[in-house]
Amino acid sequence: MTTASSPKDPLVLFMPSGKRGRFPVGTNLLEAARSLGVHVESVCGGRATCGRCQVDLQQGHFAKFGILSSCDHISARSDREERYDRLRGLPEGRRLSCSATIQGDLVVDVPQDTVINAQVVRKAAGDRVIERSPAVRLCYVEVEPPDMARPLGDLDRLKAMLARDWHIPDPAVPLRLLPQVQKLLRQGAWGVTAAIHQDEDGGRPEILALWPGLHNAAYGIACDIGSTTIALHLVSLLSGRVVASAGAPNPQIRFGEDLMSRVSYVMMNPDGREAMTAAVREAVNGLIGRVCAESGVAPQDILDAVFVANPIMHHLFLGIDPTELGQAPFALAVSGAVHTTTAELGLAANPGARAYLLPCVAGHVGADAAGATLAEGPHRQDRMMLLVDIGTNAEIVLGHAGRVVAASSPTGPAFEGAEISSGQRAAPGAIERVRIDPETLEPRFRIIGSDRWSDEPGFAADAARLGITGLCGSAIIEVVAEMYLSGIVSAEGVIDGSLAARNPRIAANGRTFSYLLHEGSPRIAITQNDLRAVQLAKAALYAGIRLLMEKQGVAAVDCIRLAGAFGSLIDPKYAMVLGLIPDCALSEVRAVGNAAGTGAMMALLNRDHRREIETTVQRIEKIETALEPHFQQLFVDAMALPHRTDPFPHLAEEVALPRRDAVSGNAARRRRR
Amino acid sequence: MTTASSPKDPLVLFMPSGKRGRFPVGTNLLEAARSLGVHVESVCGGRATCGRCQVDLQQGHFAKFGILSSCDHISARSDREERYDRLRGLPEGRRLSCSATIQGDLVVDVPQDTVINAQVVRKAAGDRVIERSPAVRLCYVEVEPPDMARPLGDLDRLKAMLARDWHIPDPAVPLRLLPQVQKLLRQGAWGVTAAIHQDEDGGRPEILALWPGLHNAAYGIACDIGSTTIALHLVSLLSGRVVASAGAPNPQIRFGEDLMSRVSYVMMNPDGREAMTAAVREAVNGLIGRVCAESGVAPQDILDAVFVANPIMHHLFLGIDPTELGQAPFALAVSGAVHTTTAELGLAANPGARAYLLPCVAGHVGADAAGATLAEGPHRQDRMMLLVDIGTNAEIVLGHAGRVVAASSPTGPAFEGAEISSGQRAAPGAIERVRIDPETLEPRFRIIGSDRWSDEPGFAADAARLGITGLCGSAIIEVVAEMYLSGIVSAEGVIDGSLAARNPRIAANGRTFSYLLHEGSPRIAITQNDLRAVQLAKAALYAGIRLLMEKQGVAAVDCIRLAGAFGSLIDPKYAMVLGLIPDCALSEVRAVGNAAGTGAMMALLNRDHRREIETTVQRIEKIETALEPHFQQLFVDAMALPHRTDPFPHLAEEVALPRRDAVSGNAARRRRR
Repeated sequence: MTTASSPKDPLVLFMPSGKRGRFPVGTNLLEAARSLGVHVESVCGGRATCGRCQVDLQQGHFAKFGILSSCDHISARSDREERYDRLRGLPEGRRLSCSATIQGDLVVDVPQDTVINAQVVRKAAGDRVIERSPAVRLCYVEVEPPDMARPLGDLDRLKAMLARDWHIPDPAVPLRLLPQVQKLLRQGAWGVTAAIHQDEDGGRPEILALWPGLHNAAYGIACDIGSTTIALHLVSLLSGRVVASAGAPNPQIRFGEDLMSRVSYVMMNPDGREAMTAAVREAVNGLIGRVCAESGVAPQDILDAVFVANPIMHHLFLGIDPTELGQAPFALAVSGAVHTTTAELGLAANPGARAYLLPCVAGHVGADAAGATLAEGPHRQDRMMLLVDIGTNAEIVLGHAGRVVAASSPTGPAFEGAEISSGQRAAPGAIERVRIDPETLEPRFRIIGSDRWSDEPGFAADAARLGITGLCGSAIIEVVAEMYLSGIVSAEGVIDGSLAARNPRIAANGRTFSYLLHEGSPRIAITQNDLRAVQLAKAALYAGIRLLMEKQGVAAVDCIRLAGAFGSLIDPKYAMVLGLIPDCALSEVRAVGNAAGTGAMMALLNRDHRREIETTVQRIEKIETALEPHFQQLFVDAMALPHRTDPFPHLAEEVALPRRDAVSGNAARRRRR
Repeated sequence: MTTASSPKDPLVLFMPSGKRGRFPVGTNLLEAARSLGVHVESVCGGRATCGRCQVDLQQGHFAKFGILSSCDHISARSDREERYDRLRGLPEGRRLSCSATIQGDLVVDVPQDTVINAQVVRKAAGDRVIERSPAVRLCYVEVEPPDMARPLGDLDRLKAMLARDWHIPDPAVPLRLLPQVQKLLRQGAWGVTAAIHQDEDGGRPEILALWPGLHNAAYGIACDIGSTTIALHLVSLLSGRVVASAGAPNPQIRFGEDLMSRVSYVMMNPDGREAMTAAVREAVNGLIGRVCAESGVAPQDILDAVFVANPIMHHLFLGIDPTELGQAPFALAVSGAVHTTTAELGLAANPGARAYLLPCVAGHVGADAAGATLAEGPHRQDRMMLLVDIGTNAEIVLGHAGRVVAASSPTGPAFEGAEISSGQRAAPGAIERVRIDPETLEPRFRIIGSDRWSDEPGFAADAARLGITGLCGSAIIEVVAEMYLSGIVSAEGVIDGSLAARNPRIAANGRTFSYLLHEGSPRIAITQNDLRAVQLAKAALYAGIRLLMEKQGVAAVDCIRLAGAFGSLIDPKYAMVLGLIPDCALSEVRAVGNAAGTGAMMALLNRDHRREIETTVQRIEKIETALEPHFQQLFVDAMALPHRTDPFPHLAEEVALPRRDAVSGNAARRRRR
């Protein structure tokens, strides 16, 4: 350990964290970094063999810090370091911090992309640099040979070295490892690498796995089990890099498209729960196989796994019957974080690998919402952040560091294309963008698989190839918003039949009217029923958001994060025109992709993030919309486009909104009866 | 909790512990007991339904303590207590301490044999009352029904009640239980009993099992896996009573009679280790089946298990290859206590049941020696105690509270009847007791299965029925000792051929002489070779003991405990005449039976005993006889009967020992070359 420093001692600055401190001349650089809380990996325990502790020495005068950093200010390369360079290669300017001592002021860069033993890692996802402090780490020790005069068992002497060299006191050891200890120690000539799991500070550490000699590879998986799609990343626990990613449809779809139909399947079929649990675990195993094959990583080197999922997927993955989640009071079997092993989940990994599931927020707000919360961090900042994941159930989180509230709102499947006459899932040939000329009321659109608008040359050929098959979710939002902006639809959501005179696309359809988007096979039109379905869906979401805003006592939010696949596809401007989300500066509305998966990765790479989300979820106030007598009024008010009463000042600066009709609220309410 | 007491508060004395304290009027009697550290069981958490907290009120004037105890000094029976009495029956004078409050001075007896729900328990083994604090206990809680406004999971609300009612914070929950939680809670109408495992203070508690409603049964097994015999007790963790016991031969005998031949079997046969592990686990399972059938206990109610075994049995039971134990430096794979589960050991018990193996002392001094040490407690007292378990390997522990030393000594199989011309294992027909008339040199003896001496009427009939088949271990000791006392054998162990003139039983046998014990079929005689084998065996043990006495710096021991089956059969006086054990007052020599098994039971019923033996084993100084240059001299000196130089003053008071021959030491040494 470092001794007390004086003001005359050299000043060392570590980048990119910016942490710095003064250390006596001769202080080991790795220990200096650690004493400041700078995470520098090391597997070999300072023996200059694993190469994980590499740092870059920065030379020059850093005026801002008053540091003149020079290669004279670090000890010369030791014999061990020279040996490592000969055997493994050390890039120019790189030093093994375990073998270097401080001789003067230094600026040192801790690279986030340490490439070890020429193993190529590639960046497939996640731009974010997550500070590392994984729950599983590798520790190499050299054990004393057996001694008749001190007859401690081989394992006990191994544990003594873990205590001495790594300050790991009395780790638990699973029975499975006991028969291997003696052979491994002798194979490694008394050198052995232990994978140590310690999730909670002060919790009992556990030896998960042992390898003879130095073992320099440790991986984890971060996985988001969605109702529709399962996404999985393989991440190096030593470098923090994503080495491979893969996704696959959730095979449970064959038991039911949406969550409630899967719950029904369990209720109707005696083996339904088992079949669905097996299906989702098989799918995860398939993805593990794919990422391992792609990256050349052995499944045996996977030592930790973190999962996020909505409550029903979470329960089915764990083997829990989700029936209670299908009916009030929507009781979760378990809401807290779940600690288990990949073996118990039937997953292909090291036999000792651990598994962790983030906590669920409530019966309809799952571990996926917790993951998104962890990733986007409303609880970490002062501004009022709205975080929305739109699916059949929208999960809504609103808050800042002082207070976070959450709710779910049953938006229904309209945005997934169901309940809409020409609706469909996003797929090639589906219309995804729509514009309507406010003068002529003529539409133009784009389909998935083509980058041309329908009025551009070449579109016809694309359309002939792909077909024009229906409206996907983003197009449903855009077409309704554009119909509103062009005056075809009133704020109450009624198609103005008088416009049939201006353009025959507006045509009577029984007692109501419809708007023809595309004359073909199929014929794609927006009916009054479609509009009503969209209004019901968007009103449910908006009312949920509004309820949370009331709980927080705010009339506006500072920023909006749209999580999930749907959030990435929609245009925030049209979502706002529709009144799907509240008013906000458009520059503050951002799609954040699979934020739940990012949260899983954070929890994989840094156990402090597990504690952070566990504490945060306990603090989040859960609002059950069904219990709020006020909710019905909020819902009715949100039926109008964009809203009966709420102003949209930021939106109005960007878009010419139609004049608000003062009586629309009453009209809307009449129609609900 | 109880409030601060004043000198005027009622004085309450708890028996049999004798603990007492003053408590304000109205203090709950169960809480008063617990605040003094008096263990009173309770499963239902003070709801007056489990009946575990029964106490006996003692009436009268207890002058010694200045207490007048009366039934007026305890609160009247509550409605709940009346209800328990109606439903379950409460014996005369018994009270449920959870429902009674202190109203004046009291003497209260905590019965050690609480019989619950008329379930009959019987005492089959272990006279000792072990203070109870088991690692597994039952906790009944009533969980709040789910509430949409506070959407904590069912398990999380259960955990909240365990924290509130039982002060069990955040127990770990195995994945296996998660799918059961919701059903169990609803079956029990939100009442549930949790089995909580917490071995170490400050360690994380774990929920092992759950039952709907109040579950009032919890058992454990204490098992000694010997090379020859496996002994198992089924014990109630709630009452501390042994409800059934069973023993069986160790089926590994078919792979080899003694330990080293079993190690050889493993080394020679690729599947040898697996076969032996399976055999011993099957045998334990068979015994579990027997004790459960005998007592009517469901294997599902077995929640904890404690095992002791010698190092090779310990390793084979855990599935560890014992090859390293067969050769220097005799390295144990693991010497510390092993914590695992019965499921991992393949044993029939509750799927969540825990298992604990006591630590091993050294490569030849196993968890069985640790168990015997725990039971007899040399480390708990001031006198110098010698604890010996005689088998093929004798395990020797010597010490007092200040210091404990241990060693093993390879006595060989002579005392098991091997290497002796007429030797055999103890079985009907085997000679077990021998006396020789010093005047006539005529012998008389007893055989196993008859309680008559061979010169008594009726013996001939018994002998005709049983046969006279050979000498078991105790008879081998006695015949050699009697031959020495009667002058047939010299202190150097030589049969005096000149006595052939006095009695033809002494007869030439090639160049040496033999003594005929029984003329029949088979002919049973003691040869010079037999004497040499006995001398080698006893010298090995005595030299080991003497080495430890030297380490302790003592010339005599204060008391001797003979553990194990063999120790129960031998007569301490003859063992001392032979020089198998050192001199000691005969009243201080005691056979203690299966002390290792008693130690296992202590560790089962009180987790503090686990810490006690873990700490003690770490403190025990292990002496490896092979590393002591001095040992050979100690061995040679111990060849003489009873010893070349050591005085036996206590023995001399009881037995007329032959005059010591001053040159015998040299003679003995000559013969060893």
